[in-house]
Amino acid sequence: MKNNQFARINTDHQTVVEELQQIHFLDDEIRVALTPAAVYHLLLKKAFLKVRGGHDYDVKLKNYLATPEIDLKDYFDASKPITAEVFYLIALQLFGFLADVDYEITDPLAAMKKMQLPMIEAEGAWNKDQVLDAWYLLLTSHTKNGQTFLDQLTNQGYCAPFYDLSVEQKPLFFNGKAQAVFDTSKLIREVVYVESSVDSDHDGKRDLLKVEFIRPAETENGLKVPALFTASPYNQDTNDEAGAKAMHKVNVLLAEKQPNDLSYEDIAYQDEEMVLPEPRPVAGETKYATETFSREFSYTLNDYFLARGFAAVYSAGIGTLDSDGIQTCGDPQQTEATIDIIEWLNGKRRAFTNRTDHIAITAWWCTGNVAMTGRSYLGTLATAAATTGVEGLKTIISEAAISSWYNYYREGGLMVAPDGFPGEDADVLAIETLSRMKAAADYHLRIKEFFTEQMKQMVRDMDRESGSYNTFWDARNYLKKVKNIKCDVLMVHGLNDWNVKPGQVEQLWQALREVPVTKKIILHQGQHIYINAFRSIDYTDMINLWISHELYGIENGAKELLPNVIVQDNVTPETWNAYQDWSEPNTPKETYHFAVEKLVSTPVGHEVLSIKDSLPEDIFNRYADHIDQWEQDILAERKNDLSENRLLFKTEPIEADKIIDGRVRIHVKAASNQSLGMLSFQLVDYGEAKRFNATPTPIGMNGIDQGYRWREDRLNEFTPAKFATPFKMITKGHINLQNRENPWKVDELKPDQFYEIDIDLQPTFHRLAAGHQLGLVIYATDFGMTVRGNQDLRYSIDLSSCHLDVPFR
Amino acid sequence: MKNNQFARINTDHQTVVEELQQIHFLDDEIRVALTPAAVYHLLLKKAFLKVRGGHDYDVKLKNYLATPEIDLKDYFDASKPITAEVFYLIALQLFGFLADVDYEITDPLAAMKKMQLPMIEAEGAWNKDQVLDAWYLLLTSHTKNGQTFLDQLTNQGYCAPFYDLSVEQKPLFFNGKAQAVFDTSKLIREVVYVESSVDSDHDGKRDLLKVEFIRPAETENGLKVPALFTASPYNQDTNDEAGAKAMHKVNVLLAEKQPNDLSYEDIAYQDEEMVLPEPRPVAGETKYATETFSREFSYTLNDYFLARGFAAVYSAGIGTLDSDGIQTCGDPQQTEATIDIIEWLNGKRRAFTNRTDHIAITAWWCTGNVAMTGRSYLGTLATAAATTGVEGLKTIISEAAISSWYNYYREGGLMVAPDGFPGEDADVLAIETLSRMKAAADYHLRIKEFFTEQMKQMVRDMDRESGSYNTFWDARNYLKKVKNIKCDVLMVHGLNDWNVKPGQVEQLWQALREVPVTKKIILHQGQHIYINAFRSIDYTDMINLWISHELYGIENGAKELLPNVIVQDNVTPETWNAYQDWSEPNTPKETYHFAVEKLVSTPVGHEVLSIKDSLPEDIFNRYADHIDQWEQDILAERKNDLSENRLLFKTEPIEADKIIDGRVRIHVKAASNQSLGMLSFQLVDYGEAKRFNATPTPIGMNGIDQGYRWREDRLNEFTPAKFATPFKMITKGHINLQNRENPWKVDELKPDQFYEIDIDLQPTFHRLAAGHQLGLVIYATDFGMTVRGNQDLRYSIDLSSCHLDVPFR
Repeated sequence: MKNNQFARINTDHQTVVEELQQIHFLDDEIRVALTPAAVYHLLLKKAFLKVRGGHDYDVKLKNYLATPEIDLKDYFDASKPITAEVFYLIALQLFGFLADVDYEITDPLAAMKKMQLPMIEAEGAWNKDQVLDAWYLLLTSHTKNGQTFLDQLTNQGYCAPFYDLSVEQKPLFFNGKAQAVFDTSKLIREVVYVESSVDSDHDGKRDLLKVEFIRPAETENGLKVPALFTASPYNQDTNDEAGAKAMHKVNVLLAEKQPNDLSYEDIAYQDEEMVLPEPRPVAGETKYATETFSREFSYTLNDYFLARGFAAVYSAGIGTLDSDGIQTCGDPQQTEATIDIIEWLNGKRRAFTNRTDHIAITAWWCTGNVAMTGRSYLGTLATAAATTGVEGLKTIISEAAISSWYNYYREGGLMVAPDGFPGEDADVLAIETLSRMKAAADYHLRIKEFFTEQMKQMVRDMDRESGSYNTFWDARNYLKKVKNIKCDVLMVHGLNDWNVKPGQVEQLWQALREVPVTKKIILHQGQHIYINAFRSIDYTDMINLWISHELYGIENGAKELLPNVIVQDNVTPETWNAYQDWSEPNTPKETYHFAVEKLVSTPVGHEVLSIKDSLPEDIFNRYADHIDQWEQDILAERKNDLSENRLLFKTEPIEADKIIDGRVRIHVKAASNQSLGMLSFQLVDYGEAKRFNATPTPIGMNGIDQGYRWREDRLNEFTPAKFATPFKMITKGHINLQNRENPWKVDELKPDQFYEIDIDLQPTFHRLAAGHQLGLVIYATDFGMTVRGNQDLRYSIDLSSCHLDVPFR
Repeated sequence: MKNNQFARINTDHQTVVEELQQIHFLDDEIRVALTPAAVYHLLLKKAFLKVRGGHDYDVKLKNYLATPEIDLKDYFDASKPITAEVFYLIALQLFGFLADVDYEITDPLAAMKKMQLPMIEAEGAWNKDQVLDAWYLLLTSHTKNGQTFLDQLTNQGYCAPFYDLSVEQKPLFFNGKAQAVFDTSKLIREVVYVESSVDSDHDGKRDLLKVEFIRPAETENGLKVPALFTASPYNQDTNDEAGAKAMHKVNVLLAEKQPNDLSYEDIAYQDEEMVLPEPRPVAGETKYATETFSREFSYTLNDYFLARGFAAVYSAGIGTLDSDGIQTCGDPQQTEATIDIIEWLNGKRRAFTNRTDHIAITAWWCTGNVAMTGRSYLGTLATAAATTGVEGLKTIISEAAISSWYNYYREGGLMVAPDGFPGEDADVLAIETLSRMKAAADYHLRIKEFFTEQMKQMVRDMDRESGSYNTFWDARNYLKKVKNIKCDVLMVHGLNDWNVKPGQVEQLWQALREVPVTKKIILHQGQHIYINAFRSIDYTDMINLWISHELYGIENGAKELLPNVIVQDNVTPETWNAYQDWSEPNTPKETYHFAVEKLVSTPVGHEVLSIKDSLPEDIFNRYADHIDQWEQDILAERKNDLSENRLLFKTEPIEADKIIDGRVRIHVKAASNQSLGMLSFQLVDYGEAKRFNATPTPIGMNGIDQGYRWREDRLNEFTPAKFATPFKMITKGHINLQNRENPWKVDELKPDQFYEIDIDLQPTFHRLAAGHQLGLVIYATDFGMTVRGNQDLRYSIDLSSCHLDVPFR
């Protein structure tokens, strides 16, 4: 294990004393203890929660080595001093590390250093203050299970006695972070219906939106809490079968497009004033909801904070079970419906207890401060909400979020599907998430006809045939309104996420440069995953620090303490580095020119290479069924069924590690043998290496607790694969040769005529290890993403006019 | 979905009325209701737990279709009758099925039948009794989430009001099964130390065994509950790194063995009288433990029953964290230690609150009735315990359990590793499970030296070199004592479990034939997995029925209702068939003779075929690293790197489905070119088919609840793979040519001399579909299981003297 903690605050001794007192570690008995060892003995006793004390405590002490020769009970009995060696040998055991495996009992300090665990290195016998300082540091350090020692104790019940604190004493913060002093067995679950400012199902009534929320029981006694709001269209279940049925064919021809002269202004979406039905009348008011729920579709990060003084709020939005409206896949109505929930939480909008009685209910238990959380579509709606500047929204934690839907389902004038979902499109997602379908009467009697018509319209508007950017997509581009953002933004994205591609977060990152809010980004080596429970990074602590500041206003220095950019290294396991910036536009670029099979530093003479795109039918079908095999063969150097369908260029092995930081730009001079065509590009890391497994490895047999007798998560870590692989795709890009300028304007493409084309690949942050070679593979049909026409297309590349510009840090 | 329920009891109307009353569905209001529709309206209202009633209930009714044209609210308002069509259209919606996908709204009854959901088909308008009968049936039927509708309501809080019942009214049974009327947020967790009758660490003191148990709060008020005891050596964590380090090399030569004349009596293990230290003195007694725990290593089946009036008891046994002793991998000491826990639960043995104070504590809260649960090593210890006939043990539910350790790590005089664990052996497992290692002081100061010596001795005793059955293994063969079993036995095993192979359970099943206890077996299509949460079978209900009878003595007809044998079909998804027997010794066998590449009905003339065993080093290494590839190539018909290392024989395509039931026997006449050798055999199902995925597919985004706001499990189902495969291994077997008679007596093997060899493959229950071909592949080194000597061995088979005897049902 290697520990990377970004959210631990270094404190002075005075603060240590105050905070240890506050969480009842430091008490009168310890204050009058005669020796440092006695102080330590008493502290430890409080941490041995499974035994009542007395001899039971002694027995447990006998399990611990104080030195390689003597157990802790005997050590205490012998009245020996506390030294760094003794303290940290025991610390390693308390933290769950294993002698002979994680550390040597003869040198605990070396292990602490190697694992990057913080410690007090004072030599000789410690005094009482040093013991207290070290204990504080211990509580705030991560153990082998990827949580702080204090969280570990909390999960064993340490904080249960704090449940009885008065509401004035809650929430309780330690080391700048909210602690689990709220009894999760007493949480209150309620449902209300927020009246939105949309009528997306055109039934002449404002859409009511079902909101499920969970609040601490203390709110009944006057405590107001901030809300973690997760807007998730999946939250009331999904229609997987109907979605599968709606999938589009991808084995279709790439179509020739009629050239046009469109400018952005021609296709720009203009905000429309929504004409709204009258609001519902109010027949009365109440403090209490009349509907509840037993088990929400939960989110482990929210669960963690439900024990710590935050409410969790879930809404699936328009078109979902028990709400009104239809699914629109990211249009302005969906954004409006999303912020309407925030407005209710912030006291600026009405909700009702049900859809018939007109009894109004406020979020009287809420401070009005809201953070949005969630990954993928959930993070997307958080981003969308932020771009409205809605009041009350203090921060969003957007994970693997879409910032422009065009780039989710299209690219460069082409159909480009998210990885793993060929054939999916905006309408499919709308159908999948229209959970009103789950209520047979609501669907069949009230919405089916209208929604079906809407979906027909959406298929026309989204225009799979052309793949071009148009008004439909412009309406679903949140980047246009980033300047309106007023909340702080914490972004998380996987550098190997080819579902929601890294460009989605990078565009937001770039657009936020000039916006006067605080922005942070964490880039990990995962695909489309959550990183709530990774052992090597204190992600949950960082979020705790962040929202304790953003929502409770705690002055914990969160904005200064958290680095602007944290990136997980792709070579060394369990390594997360802090940087000032990512994909900085002025990063110097190194230019590589093309030669036959080579990327070189000086341009070569005129040389044209060609590739075909079609495949024999049986080979085509095999790749269509086994995209993983296609992904291997398109990059493999050995001759295979795709060797004539791609060009492969490689640098010499590099001498020292280099980090590619941002977007690689490719300039090619290319021709198609027909008046239509596309090109795809993959940047590749060639070199035998045991790379990380694509998905994280679960650690341990048990889940990790999110509080005391509360919900659990699974601990994970990226581990190197058992066997070496010869290459790995770093990043990729696609372009329609008829969209050489931009994705809306269609250019003419004359057969066999060469055109100069520029394309930016998806941004990355990739360490190319010494001895490896940087490769570029050029091809046309991308079996996992583009349409697969298997057409008789040939592409020619004029090497002399091609180059690759790589931003190296 | 297809529903298979074996634990649902059909009841008469009188019982329906009584039981509905007992669980508060039938009350005075319903009794005086004027119409059947009014009865139904009131029943439904009790099932809509999320709303308080009144208009909120009405709103929810509007989500349900009563007929294709009208919602349920309007239907009730129109005072229309309840018919089967209406009742089951609504039932499908209540059960979570999706219109247009799972059923057609125009024909709900067809969907009910297709999904095998039970129903009352009475035509026309139902009367009140019919509504009640149908409601009862509904409560006991499985919904789309694989639980009964009553369990679904329970998970939403239906049973929470029953928490307050007096202890005289608890537990509460419905349809013969215990219901969740125990508040899991009030469970009591305690730790005691049972004084065992072993001193496995030779420290001159009887080994103390840590026992963690969880009991309902009602035991404080006089309720006594039975115990579900899971003996799991993994329960206090495992030493994975130390275990990995201890793994044995498998790329070693197959050794020639010195012929001997051993009879079984020569190597039989004789029970030894254990000479025991004196018991500890008792210094006092108490009712309450002084140690607790926060989160046990839990088992979802036990969790389910913790809400239903059973205690869960966990003990890791000798050699584990906080206990005494060492790990012995299945020896009689471990068995003794296991039943010592049962003896304490049954009031026949002493436990202490800790290891120093000598304060005795009894299991005063326990009825003394115990069932053992758990899979793999856990089920193994259940089997071991049963063979002692220990009092109080009423039944074992042994899942994927070992009945003889020899057959886990050896076979036919050969080293044969469990699938996925080449190099593992008894010592490795002992090291992995010696969780005392987790306590650095306990391990380093007290046990390391002794245990290390013991492991050296174990390595000698288990004798990897020979692979023969000897006294060490005979001591770990529970089959010898099956005749002592006094409890009923419920066995569960995967037909694709090549970790704990199917022969383990079949040997137990055979040995139990003459034992006067009730035995049941469930064979599924999984590998080494739990089947607690499979949608297509009511496994948890069956266990509930079983233990309600076995432990609470409820006369629910469990022994008659549950079939002797349930087998999941390997061709049709979600199909579980009941049979009277499995692997019945007198099952008629069909004989196939060997011809070149063929299995035929009449013997052929003299023909000798040969195979080699060695491979070029690079190919050998590739297979050693990628055993999955080896597994494919050894069976693939197309020419590959193993084509000369195996003989492949196939029948003609069969005309109609045939079921292989039991053990296939192979008779071969074979020779080796050296004075040593082994042969391996795989029986194969050849034929293109979309077979089940090897591991089950999770269903749904959420877990399924084990009670109200309690723990969760993941719902699973075996689903057909996306793509067809050309073959699948049915079963396999291995034999050392020097152990032609039995695994202890070593025979001479003369080079190039032919010997007649009989071998029984692992038992199976396999449907060979019409059009498929039965295949047999003969080879030597099994890359996943045997040693891999890569020796210059050649084997010859005399086809004329070979045959295959296949038991077909």
